Amino acid sequence: MTKYVYLFREADGKDKAKFGGKGANLAEMTNLGMPVPDGFTITTEACTKYYEDGRKINQEIIDQTFATLAIVEKETGKKFGDSENPFLVSVRSGARASMPGMMDTILNLGLNDVSVKGLAKKTGNPRFAYDCYRRFIQMYSDVVCGLGKSFFEVVIDEMKAAKGIKLDTEFTAEDLQELIAKYKEFYLKEKGEEFPQDPKVQLVGAIEAVFRSWDNPRANVYRRMNDIPSTWGTAVNVQSMVFGNMGDTSGTGVAFTRDPATGEKKLYGEYLMNAQGEDVVAGIRTPSTIDHLKETNEAVYNQFVAITQKLENYFKDMQDMEFTIEEGKLYMLQTRNGKRTANAAIRIACDLVDEGLITKEEALMKIEPKQLDELLHPRFDTKALKAATPIAAGLPASPGAACGKICFTAEEAMERAKSEPVVLVRLETSPEDIEGMNVAQGILTARGGRTSHAAVVARGMGRCCVAGCGALVIDEEAKTVTINGKTYTTEDYLSLDGSTGNIYAGKIKTVDAEIAGYFGRIMQWANEVRKLKVRANADTPADAKTARNFGAEGIGLCRTEHMFFAEDRIAAVREMIISKTVEQREKALAKLLPMQRDDFVKLYEAMGEYPVTIRFLDPPLHEFVPTKHEDIVALAKEMNVSYEELKETIDGLHEFNPMLGHRGCRLAVTYPEIAVMQTRAVIEAALIRKAAGASVIPEIMIPLVGDVKELKYVKEIVVKTAEEVMAEKGEKIEYHVGTMIEIPRAALTAGDIATEAEFFSFGTNDLTQMTYGFSRDDAAKFLNDYYDKKIFEQDPFQKVDQIGVGKLMKMAVADGRATRPNLKCGICGEHGGDPSTVEFCNSIGLNYVSCSPFRVPIAILAAAQAVLKQK
Amino acid sequence: MTKYVYLFREADGKDKAKFGGKGANLAEMTNLGMPVPDGFTITTEACTKYYEDGRKINQEIIDQTFATLAIVEKETGKKFGDSENPFLVSVRSGARASMPGMMDTILNLGLNDVSVKGLAKKTGNPRFAYDCYRRFIQMYSDVVCGLGKSFFEVVIDEMKAAKGIKLDTEFTAEDLQELIAKYKEFYLKEKGEEFPQDPKVQLVGAIEAVFRSWDNPRANVYRRMNDIPSTWGTAVNVQSMVFGNMGDTSGTGVAFTRDPATGEKKLYGEYLMNAQGEDVVAGIRTPSTIDHLKETNEAVYNQFVAITQKLENYFKDMQDMEFTIEEGKLYMLQTRNGKRTANAAIRIACDLVDEGLITKEEALMKIEPKQLDELLHPRFDTKALKAATPIAAGLPASPGAACGKICFTAEEAMERAKSEPVVLVRLETSPEDIEGMNVAQGILTARGGRTSHAAVVARGMGRCCVAGCGALVIDEEAKTVTINGKTYTTEDYLSLDGSTGNIYAGKIKTVDAEIAGYFGRIMQWANEVRKLKVRANADTPADAKTARNFGAEGIGLCRTEHMFFAEDRIAAVREMIISKTVEQREKALAKLLPMQRDDFVKLYEAMGEYPVTIRFLDPPLHEFVPTKHEDIVALAKEMNVSYEELKETIDGLHEFNPMLGHRGCRLAVTYPEIAVMQTRAVIEAALIRKAAGASVIPEIMIPLVGDVKELKYVKEIVVKTAEEVMAEKGEKIEYHVGTMIEIPRAALTAGDIATEAEFFSFGTNDLTQMTYGFSRDDAAKFLNDYYDKKIFEQDPFQKVDQIGVGKLMKMAVADGRATRPNLKCGICGEHGGDPSTVEFCNSIGLNYVSCSPFRVPIAILAAAQAVLKQK
Repeated sequence: MTKYVYLFREADGKDKAKFGGKGANLAEMTNLGMPVPDGFTITTEACTKYYEDGRKINQEIIDQTFATLAIVEKETGKKFGDSENPFLVSVRSGARASMPGMMDTILNLGLNDVSVKGLAKKTGNPRFAYDCYRRFIQMYSDVVCGLGKSFFEVVIDEMKAAKGIKLDTEFTAEDLQELIAKYKEFYLKEKGEEFPQDPKVQLVGAIEAVFRSWDNPRANVYRRMNDIPSTWGTAVNVQSMVFGNMGDTSGTGVAFTRDPATGEKKLYGEYLMNAQGEDVVAGIRTPSTIDHLKETNEAVYNQFVAITQKLENYFKDMQDMEFTIEEGKLYMLQTRNGKRTANAAIRIACDLVDEGLITKEEALMKIEPKQLDELLHPRFDTKALKAATPIAAGLPASPGAACGKICFTAEEAMERAKSEPVVLVRLETSPEDIEGMNVAQGILTARGGRTSHAAVVARGMGRCCVAGCGALVIDEEAKTVTINGKTYTTEDYLSLDGSTGNIYAGKIKTVDAEIAGYFGRIMQWANEVRKLKVRANADTPADAKTARNFGAEGIGLCRTEHMFFAEDRIAAVREMIISKTVEQREKALAKLLPMQRDDFVKLYEAMGEYPVTIRFLDPPLHEFVPTKHEDIVALAKEMNVSYEELKETIDGLHEFNPMLGHRGCRLAVTYPEIAVMQTRAVIEAALIRKAAGASVIPEIMIPLVGDVKELKYVKEIVVKTAEEVMAEKGEKIEYHVGTMIEIPRAALTAGDIATEAEFFSFGTNDLTQMTYGFSRDDAAKFLNDYYDKKIFEQDPFQKVDQIGVGKLMKMAVADGRATRPNLKCGICGEHGGDPSTVEFCNSIGLNYVSCSPFRVPIAILAAAQAVLKQK
Repeated sequence: MTKYVYLFREADGKDKAKFGGKGANLAEMTNLGMPVPDGFTITTEACTKYYEDGRKINQEIIDQTFATLAIVEKETGKKFGDSENPFLVSVRSGARASMPGMMDTILNLGLNDVSVKGLAKKTGNPRFAYDCYRRFIQMYSDVVCGLGKSFFEVVIDEMKAAKGIKLDTEFTAEDLQELIAKYKEFYLKEKGEEFPQDPKVQLVGAIEAVFRSWDNPRANVYRRMNDIPSTWGTAVNVQSMVFGNMGDTSGTGVAFTRDPATGEKKLYGEYLMNAQGEDVVAGIRTPSTIDHLKETNEAVYNQFVAITQKLENYFKDMQDMEFTIEEGKLYMLQTRNGKRTANAAIRIACDLVDEGLITKEEALMKIEPKQLDELLHPRFDTKALKAATPIAAGLPASPGAACGKICFTAEEAMERAKSEPVVLVRLETSPEDIEGMNVAQGILTARGGRTSHAAVVARGMGRCCVAGCGALVIDEEAKTVTINGKTYTTEDYLSLDGSTGNIYAGKIKTVDAEIAGYFGRIMQWANEVRKLKVRANADTPADAKTARNFGAEGIGLCRTEHMFFAEDRIAAVREMIISKTVEQREKALAKLLPMQRDDFVKLYEAMGEYPVTIRFLDPPLHEFVPTKHEDIVALAKEMNVSYEELKETIDGLHEFNPMLGHRGCRLAVTYPEIAVMQTRAVIEAALIRKAAGASVIPEIMIPLVGDVKELKYVKEIVVKTAEEVMAEKGEKIEYHVGTMIEIPRAALTAGDIATEAEFFSFGTNDLTQMTYGFSRDDAAKFLNDYYDKKIFEQDPFQKVDQIGVGKLMKMAVADGRATRPNLKCGICGEHGGDPSTVEFCNSIGLNYVSCSPFRVPIAILAAAQAVLKQK
C-alpha cells in the first residue's frame, strides 16, 4: 500500500519531488519547531495517480486523507463542521517547482450552515464568520464547480447599490447572510443540487480541483516556459486556517530575507494589519512595510526576524516567506527560496559565498542562467542622461534602457523593427501583443501597474518597460501620442528608462552592458568550472566586439550571406544570380570579393587570436531577388535586362519547399565559382592580418552537407583556391574546412563525413526541422494544438529535443570521432544559448557552443552548471 | 608489382570483375580451344588506377602492355608498323557488366603511311588497305583526339559529289588516298602536329580513350539506369584484327543461340558478306539471316553451330556472339549472355530448367526483375486488332502494344508525355534520345534493324518498338510523317504492335496482361523461395483486382485522400475545409462517410481474405481547394459563401514549405473529427463484409507520426470510435492500428512508437526527402549537377539510399521489435517495387513490401532473388 498522505511532521522536507516545494518546506519548518499551523500533505504521487486513473481520485487516497485529518482534528481539538469549535482548512497546491498563481487555492473550507455559527460564536465576530463563509462559497463555486466569478461579482455590486455602500467591508453580518442565501440559490439552480454542507465532500472536491488545476491552460503555458515536465504533478497541502483578519492584533504579510530587487542584505517585506492573504495580493489596500510590524508588536517582530534568519541559514538562500498573525500569535504559512532580479541573484550568490554560507559552486547553481539576460542589455549613458529632462514618468516595470521610434500596434512594431528600433506604446498590452513586445526595444503603457500584463511579460523577456504612465494620451487612429501637451508621431523617438520609469523625448545615448563587479565574479567562477568553450554567432565586427566583451572565445558562426544583403552589395549579388554563364557570374563575384575580404579582415581584427568560423553562402538565391512586379521592373532597368528575362530568371528560382531546395552547399556544387570567391576572401583576409602581425586560423564551414561526396567536392575547390591564393602571396597560413551537421543524413553518415570534415557544427535549427519534418514557419499553425493536447510540452525550436534530434547529435559525435578522434564539435543553432541545450551539449562531449552575443554569459553559466550537475 | 596485362590464355575467365565481361569470355573461348584472334586484356584495375592517378596511365601499365604485345607479335609473326606483314589490332572496352555502345572502340589500329602499304601488299587489295586506314584516322581523330565526326563526313560527301558517286564502296584506292591526305591535313591543322605514325603512340592513345570513355556522359547515364557503380572501371581488350571485308569468302555476323525476342530454341542471327562489324551495327546495309552463311559455306556454318552449342552448354545460358569470317576462316570475336526480351527471358529460363542445364533457383537468378515490366503492360485487344488494318509494317524490334500521339524529338516527347501518351517517331535513334524513349509509349524508326540502337535500347527498357519501317517519310521541320501517301501530324494517334511490327492509324483498344504459361511457372518458383510478402499500393477496387491478378497478398497502402478528389466528393471535402466550427465540419464529414464506407466495402471485396492497410488523410488541405481567381469565384458561388471569406480561408492554408507543413496525423490532431469519420467508414465497412460472411482485418495506418504521443492521441480517437461503432452494431471485429515511419524522428524513436503502433510501414518517399533535406520537386533542379559531378550515382528516389535512409530503417526495425517482438514491418514508398530496395528490405527483416500493382511480379521475383543471394 502506497502512503499518499503525510502529516507535516512526518514528511521528508528534502523530498520536494514527493511533497512539492510548499509541502516540503512546511515539513522543514514544522520539524525546526517553528509555529506552523497543523496540517498534512497529499503527495505528488497522488496527483500522478489521479491522471493515470483517468482523472479520478483513488479511494485509498481519500481514506488516507480522512484518517490523517482525524489526527489533526484530535490534536487541534477542533472538528470538521462543528457547531462550537469548527475545524477550517486551506487547500493549496504545491508543485516541485514554484509556479506562483498558476494553480488553485481554497480557503475557509469546512464552513457550512452549522459551522459558520460555531465560528461566529467562537470568535465573537459574526460578520467575520459570514464573510468567511461567503468567500468560501464563491471560491468553491468557481474553483471546484467551474461556475465562474461573474455572477458573484454582479450580486455583490447589486447589493452594494441596494444598501448604498461602496466597500465590501461595509456589509453587515446580516447583509452577508442575505448574500450567502443568494449564492446558495444560484448554486442550486446551476448545479441542480444544494451547496455541499458536508465538509468531507467539500474537501474531496477541493483536492480534486487542485489536481485538476495542474492541467489548466495557464499552468501548461507556465510549465512550457519554465521547462517543468507535466509528469511531476502537484502535491496538495491541507492546513488549519489561521486568520489575519480578526482585528488589529491580527495581520498578514510577505517578507524576503534580502532585497529581491538589489540583493541587499536586509529584511524586506510588506505587512497588512487586519487582513487575509488575498487582500495583500489583490492590491486593494496598500500594505505597509515590515517595519510597521515592529512598531505595533515588537515581540512578534523579533520572533519573526529570528525565524527568517534561521530559515535563511538553514536553506542557505534568500527566503520568501508568508506569515499570519492571529490575535498576536505568529504563524508561518510558507517559506521558499525567493524569486529575485538578476542583479539581486548575482549579489546574493556572491554575498552568501563571502558570508561562508555556500561554496562558489553552490553559488553558481543558485543563478538561473536565462535571467542574466536582464544584465546584458544597454543602459543610458550617465552623462547623456543627466543632460536630459524627462517629459513624463511611469512605473519602472522592467529594467534597462530603450530608445526607438514610436509604434502603436504590435503588427506595426513587427514590421518596422526589421529596419529601425521601435518603442511600443499601448494603452495596455494583451497576450496578442507578445510578438510586438519581443521585437520592440521597450514598451510604454498608459495603464496598469508593476504586476500588469505589460510589466510581467516585459520582465520575462528582459525587455525594458515603463508601465502605467497616466500622462499619455494615445490616439491610435491618428497614430499620435500626446504627453503633457506635446504630440509625438511615429517618426519621433522616445527613450525609456525601465529602472526609473522616466520617459524622454528623442534619442539618448546608451552604453553597452559590461561584465564587472558581482557579475564579473560569477563569470570568473563559471569560467573556472566549465569545460565547454563558448563562442558567438556574429556577422559584423560590432557583434564580434560585443561577444568578446561578454566573454566569447571565438565566432562559431559567421553567416556570410548577411553581408550580401547590404545595399552596396545586393546589386552585385543580383548580377551574379541573373548571370547566364560562368564568366558573367565570375565577373559579378569579382565585385563582391574586395567587400567580402574586407568584412573578414575586420572580423578577424575584432576577434583577435580567437577562431572565426565562416559559413559559406547558405540561403536559396530567390531570397536575394524581388518578388513584386514593380520591384522587378525597377531591377530590370537597373540591371539593364528586359523585364521578361528577369522575370523568367526569378520565376525559375521558385521552389515548392524552399527549406528543402537549392541552397547550402548545393549552391556551391552548381556554382563552384561562389565558393572560389568566398575562399579567396577568407584566405586573402587572413594573409592581410598575418602581414599585420596577427595570427588567424580561419575555419571554413560548408553548410547543408548530406553526403561526404558533397563536402569532398566543395572542399577540393576550397583547398585548390586556398593553395592558389597562398602561392600568389608567397605566404602560408593554417586553415580548416569543416561542415554543418544540419541534415539528418549528415548525422547518420557522420563517420564518412568526418573523413573530410575537420570540424562539425550542429545546425540544430534545420536539424530540428528535418528530423521532425516540419518547418518552423508552418508548424506555428498547429503547434498550439500540440501543446493543448499535450503532445508537445516544449517548443523544439527553443530547447533541443534530446530524444530524437539529440540521438542524431550523439551518434554524429561518436561516429565522427571514431573516424577522426580529435574532431572538434560544436553547435551554432539558436539552441546554443539555451541552458538545457548547453547542458546536453556538455553531456555529449561537444567542444563548444555558439550563440548570439547577448547569450554568451548565459551559455557560460549554463556550461558551468552542466559540469556541476554532472558531478 | 601488380600484373595489369594478361594474354587471353592467361586470364581467369571466371573473373569478370578483373577482366570485364568481354575479356573474361575471350579467355574462356581461347581456353576452350575456339578460334579467337590473339590478343590480351588490360584489367579493370588499370582503369581504376588511371582515375586514382588523376587520369594518367601508369608507366608500369604501358610497359606491361608493350611486353605483352611483343609476345603476340612474335606468335602471329606480324609486327607493329611493318611494311610487309603489319600487326593491326582492335582496341575495345569491356566492363564487368555489358554496356553496349556506351564506350568507345577503335579498329585497324597500327596503320600508318608505311604499314598501310604492307597491308595492301599482303592482301593484294590496296583499296581495302586504304579504306581501313581512312576509317582508322576517322575513328582515332574522333575517339582519341575529340575532333568529332562531322568534318570527315563532310569531306566524304564532298568527294562523292566531286567523283559523281553515291556509295563509300565506289571509292577507288586513289580516291581513298586523296581522302587520307585531306584527313591528315585537317588533323595537323586542328592538333598542331602530324597524325601519329608510331603505332605504340596510337595504342597508348587508344587505351587512354577507352579508360576515359568509362566516364563519358552516356556511360554515366547508362550506369545510373542500370545500377552499375562507377568504381568498377572498364578493361581494355587489344586483339589482332581479322577482316570480314576481304571479299565474298569473308563476312561478319552476330548470332544468338536462342531467339532473343521469343526465347525459342533456334540459332538466330544476321550475317553480312564482305563487311566489317560496324557495317552490321550501323544498319547501312541490311544483313541476311544466318542461314545465308549455311548456303554459302556450309562447313564454316557447321563449325560455327557447333561452337555456339558448346558455348551455350558451357555458360548455361543463351549466348550472343560476334564472329568474323576472313577468307573462309571463322574467328570468334566475342560471346556473352544475350540480352533478351522479358518473354524470351522467362521462356529460356524455363527451357533451361527443362533441359536439365540449370536448377529452378539458377533460373530465377537469370531474370532481371525490372524486365518483367514488359510483360505487365497491355496488349492489343484481339478483336480490336482484327478489325484494324495496318497502314505499314516495320521490324518487330521490341514487343508490346503502344498507342500515343506522334512526337518527333526526344525533348518534345519528354514535355508532352507529362500530359498525354506519345509515340516517338524518328529516322533512327541515338544515345541522346534515351530519355525521350523512356517516357514514350513506343518507338517507331524508319531505319535500322533489330540490332539497331532503337531496338536494343527499347528492349532494354521494355518499351514497345517497331524499327526500320522504310515506308515512313518524316518531315521534322513540318512535324509530319507521311506513310503510304497519308500524312499524320503531332495531333494524330498511332498504334504500334512491337510483336508483329504492324503500325496502325488511330487508337486501338488494349487488354491487360496476365500471368500464365512460362510467366506463371517463374512466379510459382519465386513464391516457393521468397520470404517477403508482397502487397500492392491500391486505392481503387480496379487497382486491387489488378494487384491480386499479379499475385499481391494484400494492400499495403490505400491512400484515402485519393477518394476525396472524386467529382462527387470534392464539394463535401471543401465544405469541411471551409467549416468554422466542429459542428459544420462534422456535418460535411457526414456526407463523406457513406461514400468512404462504400469505397472500403468494395476494396475489402476485391482483396478477399487479404489484409488491407488504410492510410488516413495525409495531404495538406490546400491541395483540395482552387488557387486561381476564377475558380475561387466559382467555388464561392457553389459553396454559398462570400468570395472574400473563401479567399481568406484559402490564403490561410498557404504554407511556406507544404512538405513540412500541416498534413498527415497533424490534421487529425487539429481536426479529430476527420479521424472519427474515417474510422467509422473503415469499421462499418468491415462489419458489412462480416455480415456477408467474409472476414476482414482492417489495418488503420496513421501517417507522418514523429512522436509517440501524436500516434497515441490519434489512436485513442480511433479506438474509441471503433468501439462505439462495434457497440452500435452489436458485433466485433479485429483491427489493427499502426503508423507510417516516414519522418526521421519516427525512425529514431521507433522503440517508443512501437508501444502504440501494431505495425510500421516505411514511407520511404518522405523519409528520403527529410533524411536528405531536399524535396523531390526542388531537387530535380540540381540533381543533374550532382550526377555530373559524381556526388550521386543513383537517384535516391528510385533506389533506397541504404547508407543513410537505410540506417534509419534498420534502427527502426530493431528498436521497434525490441519493444514489440511481433511488430509487422513493411514498406509502402515507391521504392517498394525497386529490386535492389526489395533485396535491402529482405536483409533487414521486413515482413512485406508494397508497390504499385504493375510492379508486384517484379517485387515477387526480386524477393526470391534476395533470398537466393543471401545464401
